[in-house]
Amino acid sequence: VEAGGVSPLHEDRYFDPDPIVRRHARALYDETRALPIISPHGHVDPAILASDEAFKDPASLIITPDHYILRMLYSQGVPLEWLGVVPIDGKPPNAEPNPRRIWQTFVDHWQFFRGTPTRAWFEYVLHEVFGVQSELDSASAPLVYDAIAEKLLSPEFRPRALFKRFKIEVLATTDAASDTLEHHKALRTVELGGRVIPTFRPDALFRISSPEWSAELSRFERVSGGTIGSYAELMRAVARRRADFKAMGATATDHAVVVPHTERLDEREAERLFAKAGERAAKVEDQARFEAHLLMEMARMSVDDGLVMQLHTGALRDHNELVHRRFGSDRGGDIPVATEFTRNLRPLLNAYGNDARFRIIVFTLDESTYSRELAPLAGHYPAMLLGAPWWFNDSIEGMTRFRRQTTETAAIQNTAGFTDDTRAFCSIPARHDLARRVYANYLAGLVARHVIDMTDASEMARALAYDLAKRAYRLT
Amino acid sequence: VEAGGVSPLHEDRYFDPDPIVRRHARALYDETRALPIISPHGHVDPAILASDEAFKDPASLIITPDHYILRMLYSQGVPLEWLGVVPIDGKPPNAEPNPRRIWQTFVDHWQFFRGTPTRAWFEYVLHEVFGVQSELDSASAPLVYDAIAEKLLSPEFRPRALFKRFKIEVLATTDAASDTLEHHKALRTVELGGRVIPTFRPDALFRISSPEWSAELSRFERVSGGTIGSYAELMRAVARRRADFKAMGATATDHAVVVPHTERLDEREAERLFAKAGERAAKVEDQARFEAHLLMEMARMSVDDGLVMQLHTGALRDHNELVHRRFGSDRGGDIPVATEFTRNLRPLLNAYGNDARFRIIVFTLDESTYSRELAPLAGHYPAMLLGAPWWFNDSIEGMTRFRRQTTETAAIQNTAGFTDDTRAFCSIPARHDLARRVYANYLAGLVARHVIDMTDASEMARALAYDLAKRAYRLT
Amino acid sequence: VEAGGVSPLHEDRYFDPDPIVRRHARALYDETRALPIISPHGHVDPAILASDEAFKDPASLIITPDHYILRMLYSQGVPLEWLGVVPIDGKPPNAEPNPRRIWQTFVDHWQFFRGTPTRAWFEYVLHEVFGVQSELDSASAPLVYDAIAEKLLSPEFRPRALFKRFKIEVLATTDAASDTLEHHKALRTVELGGRVIPTFRPDALFRISSPEWSAELSRFERVSGGTIGSYAELMRAVARRRADFKAMGATATDHAVVVPHTERLDEREAERLFAKAGERAAKVEDQARFEAHLLMEMARMSVDDGLVMQLHTGALRDHNELVHRRFGSDRGGDIPVATEFTRNLRPLLNAYGNDARFRIIVFTLDESTYSRELAPLAGHYPAMLLGAPWWFNDSIEGMTRFRRQTTETAAIQNTAGFTDDTRAFCSIPARHDLARRVYANYLAGLVARHVIDMTDASEMARALAYDLAKRAYRLT
Repeated sequence: VEAGGVSPLHEDRYFDPDPIVRRHARALYDETRALPIISPHGHVDPAILASDEAFKDPASLIITPDHYILRMLYSQGVPLEWLGVVPIDGKPPNAEPNPRRIWQTFVDHWQFFRGTPTRAWFEYVLHEVFGVQSELDSASAPLVYDAIAEKLLSPEFRPRALFKRFKIEVLATTDAASDTLEHHKALRTVELGGRVIPTFRPDALFRISSPEWSAELSRFERVSGGTIGSYAELMRAVARRRADFKAMGATATDHAVVVPHTERLDEREAERLFAKAGERAAKVEDQARFEAHLLMEMARMSVDDGLVMQLHTGALRDHNELVHRRFGSDRGGDIPVATEFTRNLRPLLNAYGNDARFRIIVFTLDESTYSRELAPLAGHYPAMLLGAPWWFNDSIEGMTRFRRQTTETAAIQNTAGFTDDTRAFCSIPARHDLARRVYANYLAGLVARHVIDMTDASEMARALAYDLAKRAYRLT
Repeated sequence: VEAGGVSPLHEDRYFDPDPIVRRHARALYDETRALPIISPHGHVDPAILASDEAFKDPASLIITPDHYILRMLYSQGVPLEWLGVVPIDGKPPNAEPNPRRIWQTFVDHWQFFRGTPTRAWFEYVLHEVFGVQSELDSASAPLVYDAIAEKLLSPEFRPRALFKRFKIEVLATTDAASDTLEHHKALRTVELGGRVIPTFRPDALFRISSPEWSAELSRFERVSGGTIGSYAELMRAVARRRADFKAMGATATDHAVVVPHTERLDEREAERLFAKAGERAAKVEDQARFEAHLLMEMARMSVDDGLVMQLHTGALRDHNELVHRRFGSDRGGDIPVATEFTRNLRPLLNAYGNDARFRIIVFTLDESTYSRELAPLAGHYPAMLLGAPWWFNDSIEGMTRFRRQTTETAAIQNTAGFTDDTRAFCSIPARHDLARRVYANYLAGLVARHVIDMTDASEMARALAYDLAKRAYRLT
Repeated sequence: VEAGGVSPLHEDRYFDPDPIVRRHARALYDETRALPIISPHGHVDPAILASDEAFKDPASLIITPDHYILRMLYSQGVPLEWLGVVPIDGKPPNAEPNPRRIWQTFVDHWQFFRGTPTRAWFEYVLHEVFGVQSELDSASAPLVYDAIAEKLLSPEFRPRALFKRFKIEVLATTDAASDTLEHHKALRTVELGGRVIPTFRPDALFRISSPEWSAELSRFERVSGGTIGSYAELMRAVARRRADFKAMGATATDHAVVVPHTERLDEREAERLFAKAGERAAKVEDQARFEAHLLMEMARMSVDDGLVMQLHTGALRDHNELVHRRFGSDRGGDIPVATEFTRNLRPLLNAYGNDARFRIIVFTLDESTYSRELAPLAGHYPAMLLGAPWWFNDSIEGMTRFRRQTTETAAIQNTAGFTDDTRAFCSIPARHDLARRVYANYLAGLVARHVIDMTDASEMARALAYDLAKRAYRLT
């Protein structure tokens, strides 16, 4: 995706210094660096590509929407308003959103990102996507801003042009069950050199103790055609809606829960909980049971319609209530919790895990479960794959730990390859490049220790960069 | 154990590529590679050695009994019948057990084992035990099968001949409390160049809520001489039976529990639970309390008779009910759970952990307990040792993590060395060779960083390969 | 801190052997090795410096008080009396405390410390602090003893002289709320080339179910001026006492809990619990709720007075009751437990975590929380820092794991640098030297992989060795 010019990024970055490992890593990376991008899970707004409008400015493009950046600067005492985040609590912000000032504030704290993946991704975006040749520091910040701002005005930096340059073969977005999918509809007829497809994420519909549940149900009723007065009707509408998503290209669903408990309720109990929700009387415990049951139901429907089921577990959302009230969700205040899979997933895996039509991809934020629970489960059940190292663990050390702790038990074939999971469109190639480097280096280490040979490594590198994600998400 | 011929295995496999580390690793491995094998815990069937019959065929020898192979292929959609596993549920199998076809099926999936210890062990068995010189792939599979099949007919590949060639000094099997020990009896008079000894494993006798409990009690009554009508009688019979095992050479007992809870009940309560079991009315909670009490009792008896107590914790057996119903246990469907030791073992360690006559070796599948709980416990209590990295963690990365996470707190002396824990007789030398290489490499890394010197490393390498296991299991 | 003479310690110890990493590590270590020592948390007895008496003998100086040494030798069957620990249970000891014999016993078990930080620190003390040039073994033990004993008689080895030679800029002790601070008072007027300051640790005052609570309350009443008859009076006295500590130079408080639960009680409930304690009727659960509330209160007071709040969590003290009864606390029998932070700290962080006046430094013994809970929390809340790897994890591998598992999410700026946490005065420079080496090596690895450059690494090395601790503990 190079924009031309001389990049200050080191060609061998993230490779071990040992000359044998480095030589192998370089060779393996060279074989995978130019492969098309499969991005089967992420949060890019499809409106960006549907409208193809020029991006507004460098700050709103790459600073303000990035919760990794927000959290780090907030931890260092920088108010979120200084980074362009708009308060939603009605109280006046303590700064005007000025893109140049936001950019400068960020760059003035650049040093705090040393050793973080945010910095690695950001440098790639600067130097490889935007062709910036100078190093970033407080003095160069305004010039770099200008250079990027100028690029954003040119047709080569419009979203669709970048989509092609990034060589994206598939980009899956994540969409509420109540989403109209209008942008996906619009994109069906656009020649992008690759697909943009939705992912069915019905979480909000199942959070029956949430104050926002009724509004979500109303939205869902609007798109799914008609009043939903019972649990049975909800299930029928969900099944129809899954078919709509599938018709629009979706190959997967996505489900986020704090605790991955799974348990089938009887129909009457499910109806009772739905009725309680309708009366706005559902408690947190009611929701927990409803969600546990709905995971079973989503698995059952996946057996029928073939949509791959993704499970993202263990993030306690909006831990910081002050930040949540003032700025809303996704501002960097989500914190992981310890997660149990062996007992929690047992009912679901016993019901559907032996069925070749079913596929479930499980993501965790709790690394202690890699070798203890998830690799053994994925290394046994035909239907289960282990999702890529996620979020905080989508990093050089995090991906390395993941492979070291899962390959010996689950092999790479029981994992789902790489997913970038980003909402920052321009960082997509940055994240894939980092992953391809890290995996090349991991495999090079195995070759150097004679655990595998270069023929093995070559196929595995390609699998990790491309094949596994495509197969896991049924994108062929 | 080389069978002659040129092995395609790299002489420096599993060693770091850094030239200093590699040089030290090679030197340390050379000092330990030819040491006799101490195998103080495993699941080899003593009948193999007692009968000394030729092994039947390559598939039933090294494919069908290996639950690591079964789980991996099953996860990739291969039916267990294709691997020779016989259904026990009365329904017809979906494949005839044909050893050549089983072998070919396995080899056709050989690539899935890249980077797994199964592959490393298997390659050793092929090339070092059976002297196969060609690489294994789908095309060579029939030839390799023939080569091994031919070897199996020759006297040099009979079990006892292999036992001698493997240089096994001690091989401990694992035997139910109700086992007649007839094969061990027979082996007492056979010259093997080493000992085969039993290990007392009474678990089934303590699982009072299991439907199989009565049958096990009956079997136990038969071997222990008389009806057992009370808890007190059970305890007396267990003590006598331990003496029988000891007379047959046993130096250890083995106990598997999911949760290592320990708690002494009063005699009346223990009698009440036993009576409840007799009426087939014992619940899961009753069994949990009975087992917690029995661990205390087994420790008490170990103080008396000197048998080393092994505790294997944290495996949820038969997670996959479909596989369990159709094929029985040990088919690759056991999954670890998070395990707590600090509070659970406290009663037992307070009662017996300061007693020099007592020794308990604790195994875990939960790596998060290495540095947090087990190394601190083993690094304090005189009676406790930390068992070798077990099962899923008995691997290159797993053993390396184990030593890195335990040595600084517990030192190697508070660990029990290496145990191969295998039911695959031919893989015994493969597993010891892998461990000796990995530990040589671990120590070489310490020498290269000047944490220890080569004199230290040399003694430690020998300890890890031989001395520690011998001392831990009182095999001198 | 070299005492002169040729040390047998390798100049490049603890550095990776890779020549590129080693070159960078050496350079980074050279930049930090001579920096002054900031020791913001530890357990040195201030009386040592206040009296400046010569240390008595090598055994009572560096063997008997070291619980790392006690635990290791105890685990190998050495009675604690042989190491000079005096029984407190009235029963006669099984050995006379003879410093030469203690020393010899220790050295005879020297091999058990291979690969442990104890050995690394001890060797530094021997060779760098005391200038011993011969290697330590059973034969040389008496000579080494004599050499150290002789040194101890000379003025250069008096505590204050060593304090200067160690280049200690700040040494914080840990002091009960009821401590008279007389030694700190005395030290205020002594020219040491650095400060000795107290830390306010009120734990004993909040353990309302402990049999020792009344005695502690009485002691506290004596120093805080007057009878405390209510919870409200206790809080007022605590606030006054914090001010006393602050006047004596304190910049921090310290709080040890097994479970870091935080929860505000209403005033009436807190009074009820205090009254129950007064009647010696408070239960373990009462104490848990009282402590959870008191953590909230300590945070509130920190907002007011600016004292940095330290939280040490997850150590189950005196696990071994026999050792505890016979020899008291801090003899090596404390064992970590799994610890939950995300939910437990939420009330406290929501109440105070966004407040720039507040600072909380959290320590854990549960490494599984590094990447899962603590780095995400510290990488978000402005008030929270992650404390140095603690106790069992204050080691070469432990510190390396800590940085690898936290830097990518929290960056080094959200950690509190290094704290030696030692009660062994002479080991202070040993621990800082080890940490500076390990961190230089960690950063060198990042440079060698082109994650950061040498300019970054240089600033980070200094931050980890000096700046971060100073800033974290408000020592400027």
